[in-house]
Amino acid sequence: MAAKRVGKRTIRFQNPPIIIATGTVVGPMEGNGPLGPDFDVVLQDNMYGQATPEKAETKLLEEAAKVAFQKASLSPQDVEYMLAGDLLNQIISSSFAARQLEIPYFGLYGACSTAAEGMCLGGMLIDGGFADRVLVCVSSHYQTAERQYRYPIELNIKRKLTAQYTVTGAGAAILASQGSGPRVTLATVGTVVDLGIKDPNDMGSAMAPAAAETMFQFFSDTNTRPEDYDLILTGDLARVGKVMVQEVLKEKGIALGDNYDDCGVIIYGNNPKVGAGGSGCACSAVVTFGRILREMKNGIYAKVLLVATGALMSPLSYQQGESIPGIAHAVLIEA
Amino acid sequence: MAAKRVGKRTIRFQNPPIIIATGTVVGPMEGNGPLGPDFDVVLQDNMYGQATPEKAETKLLEEAAKVAFQKASLSPQDVEYMLAGDLLNQIISSSFAARQLEIPYFGLYGACSTAAEGMCLGGMLIDGGFADRVLVCVSSHYQTAERQYRYPIELNIKRKLTAQYTVTGAGAAILASQGSGPRVTLATVGTVVDLGIKDPNDMGSAMAPAAAETMFQFFSDTNTRPEDYDLILTGDLARVGKVMVQEVLKEKGIALGDNYDDCGVIIYGNNPKVGAGGSGCACSAVVTFGRILREMKNGIYAKVLLVATGALMSPLSYQQGESIPGIAHAVLIEA
Repeated sequence: MAAKRVGKRTIRFQNPPIIIATGTVVGPMEGNGPLGPDFDVVLQDNMYGQATPEKAETKLLEEAAKVAFQKASLSPQDVEYMLAGDLLNQIISSSFAARQLEIPYFGLYGACSTAAEGMCLGGMLIDGGFADRVLVCVSSHYQTAERQYRYPIELNIKRKLTAQYTVTGAGAAILASQGSGPRVTLATVGTVVDLGIKDPNDMGSAMAPAAAETMFQFFSDTNTRPEDYDLILTGDLARVGKVMVQEVLKEKGIALGDNYDDCGVIIYGNNPKVGAGGSGCACSAVVTFGRILREMKNGIYAKVLLVATGALMSPLSYQQGESIPGIAHAVLIEA
Repeated sequence: MAAKRVGKRTIRFQNPPIIIATGTVVGPMEGNGPLGPDFDVVLQDNMYGQATPEKAETKLLEEAAKVAFQKASLSPQDVEYMLAGDLLNQIISSSFAARQLEIPYFGLYGACSTAAEGMCLGGMLIDGGFADRVLVCVSSHYQTAERQYRYPIELNIKRKLTAQYTVTGAGAAILASQGSGPRVTLATVGTVVDLGIKDPNDMGSAMAPAAAETMFQFFSDTNTRPEDYDLILTGDLARVGKVMVQEVLKEKGIALGDNYDDCGVIIYGNNPKVGAGGSGCACSAVVTFGRILREMKNGIYAKVLLVATGALMSPLSYQQGESIPGIAHAVLIEA
């Protein structure tokens, strides 16, 4: 086993899983943002022709998977496992998409960190010799998340500046033991970290300690520093959490420099409507599977460390006075 | 990879994960049932000294893990990963337990099939060389499930005969690459199966087709028959689903005989209060980790096929007219 571990908590894949294809589908607001041209499908309307936003979210996920299969010239039968999750109660978007795809299915819940959770597990399934190909996919949707976690959008509640805006979208990646594409070479699975933040309108601050903890572990396990990577990308800390993770790591002697950014910050640019920035399972997935992998193919980045973050709360845990625990999983993607 | 696969969809572990210790904690009603003496801890009161049933459920999960660690003379630091899930929105019981245990954490959602989902994935992590030990644990709680999925118990709504009773309990198992105990030798991961059942008071019928599909796949992949096993145990089909799975498999030429039973049927015996029988993530977990593994140790069974079942719906998907998809994961446990 030792050969597959680096330091205390990091995995080094012996036969690194290759990201042979991805699919990204986003809503109109994400399509109008600075990363618009990087997405495979941009919807005209968040409802996607469906009767409810929940049904639209399922369709987003199915479509993202379909695009990935098309790009890889594969069909769902060519994939041994599907690892998927979303933010909805009982991850119905993922389970209903899995019903359509008919792939043996592992349902995951890691809140907004789920894309990285799936890449960690999917990578282990491939490197462990249990699958030649796995599909990792996640979704989120502004309307479904707002009405489940906060208020129905019809109430038009004023957003706080620290609040984040749930990305409407879905991202899918096919990981394979053979083929061409960037490889997932290292993974650090996160622990649950809770510093007692209780404000559900400030998820960035709730998740930042977990991101810092996982990054600290990754750098110390691999004996590397932030400047050893071309890009370090947190999932959805957005503007508030991005500053906080930099401060926490600085106290531990790690300086995140200009090569550090956050998917929640970059997906909407300076759109004033989004508060502190984007969030949701789709946030890190569509940014990474869209923009970042394209730039890796174009030779702009060779080594990208993705640290996807999740807030592991529910409206009920909040009502019962619980604070908001966070988690972050890191995967190193190399061209 | 071929060496680790049998037939189309079944995994054969090369270094089968060993179940070195388990912990089971249940509520008073489960403790008063026929399996009472098999559980490690039986609560006097479902609330477990907590202010809310949700907090009680988290404590159940922590306690089950604690018992398993004690039996194995290990502490949480000795385990590389925790794989856990429950029925609550955003699996808060698992995430809050993971906050206490501080083990790198993969959140899972497979409804009542989660124990087997965790054993499949945990087994792959061990056999793949990524961990020496993993903790797999799940929980469910009558009060938390009733008020989330159906009605607050205070309303005292009359239960339908086909309805099932959520097991209050938690089960934990430590899987390891070395040590003594029964081994998980084969695993078949389920696909999502939906025959259009829409009655949330008849989950057994909704899940039975998935159980039949996974069992059919397992028997055909391994070229075996039901009589080749000492015990075949579905998760929580209860009395209605148990008959249905037998009928569906009979049509496919597979006769489930006297060596077939269902955890949801046996956990409460003939208690008239429970409708068709037990359900919940804890149902298959506490029956298997309590009674069944003890009987394997006592030489009563050598080969037990556990087929844990889950209904992948949410109250919202039901309200939106969706039918109830099911899933079932099979693991073969050998003494």
